[in-house]
Amino acid sequence: MAKQIDFYYDYSSPYGYLASQRIEQIASEHGLKINWQPILLGAVFKVSGQAPLLSYPLKGDYAIIDFARSAREHNIAFNQPKHFPIGAVAASRATRWLADHSDKTQSTKTSELVHAFFKAYYVDGHDLSKPDVVLNAAESIGINRDSLEAALGEQSVKDHLRMAIETAIERGVFGSPTMVVDGEMFWGNDRLDQLNRWLSSGGW
Amino acid sequence: MAKQIDFYYDYSSPYGYLASQRIEQIASEHGLKINWQPILLGAVFKVSGQAPLLSYPLKGDYAIIDFARSAREHNIAFNQPKHFPIGAVAASRATRWLADHSDKTQSTKTSELVHAFFKAYYVDGHDLSKPDVVLNAAESIGINRDSLEAALGEQSVKDHLRMAIETAIERGVFGSPTMVVDGEMFWGNDRLDQLNRWLSSGGW
Repeated sequence: MAKQIDFYYDYSSPYGYLASQRIEQIASEHGLKINWQPILLGAVFKVSGQAPLLSYPLKGDYAIIDFARSAREHNIAFNQPKHFPIGAVAASRATRWLADHSDKTQSTKTSELVHAFFKAYYVDGHDLSKPDVVLNAAESIGINRDSLEAALGEQSVKDHLRMAIETAIERGVFGSPTMVVDGEMFWGNDRLDQLNRWLSSGGW
Repeated sequence: MAKQIDFYYDYSSPYGYLASQRIEQIASEHGLKINWQPILLGAVFKVSGQAPLLSYPLKGDYAIIDFARSAREHNIAFNQPKHFPIGAVAASRATRWLADHSDKTQSTKTSELVHAFFKAYYVDGHDLSKPDVVLNAAESIGINRDSLEAALGEQSVKDHLRMAIETAIERGVFGSPTMVVDGEMFWGNDRLDQLNRWLSSGGW
């Protein structure tokens, strides 16, 4: 039996953000923890042959409308960022670093950090690609700024993120958000309800 | 107030097929008719820069699993076709032709034809790109085979499909299925529930 939902997301993905606002409630209803797995879609797309959503004519225009509409449906604060998409390398490294210093099933602190980063980008409108924005957000939830700043420059932290992304790709992850539970993969914010039904019913 | 749901789909799209099995129930709950709008994603992708789903590494592998899983959830008969994807030109022209010879809001006969084509491809495993398969399916619901065969060669029928696809693209349609009601566009089989909530609530 599953003990956790692996939740793969890119901080630059609006659907990743929207799903991050609801996944904990779903997990909690089924007694599961969230294993936060930040990835970088830029690296994934090199393998999967995709391109950033807004770069597609027609599909990109729809996405802009759909981000906001999907947020409104669930009363989630959402402001389309001016800088979009971004490379959320620092935020992703910071999340991996904190998780490595927490317990195996991911601490409450890691969840707090995930939400702080998403809020900085999608609510407060800060450019999350900037290390200062990352450090400010981390500091706002009580993480030591100097320790994190030092960690972001460490090779082991860089390696951990890179290897985690490689493992995600090997597992078949190609988009954000992707939820994996008991080996079953669900892609997309619009699959949260299906995931919930899957967990409730034991699958079909 | 809307009187119909414009339902854009490619006969070669599994998600179009799956949505076709549920959209009438949703429409009927809200007193709406379905305006069946067959399109060819090959033409759409030239504008939108996309490629057939299964051509994407990782994403294609997931799609194969997801088609079947999404079908099972709603007890919809589904067999992954051997010939996939196909160019469903003849089936699309036949649908447009029949719709042109029916009343404005699309007749029951057009719905029957849509379901007969999808069944031939996704249940019975016939290659719907072949005119004979199209003619057989049409004949099975009482459409005159000779009349349809003659119609498939008519320039006006070819032009109608081409123009309808151009109009769909101008409207922003980039995928299958796409549902448009009162100017609001929803893309994807996994958005049927959201569309239903939108219609129930009057939007948000």
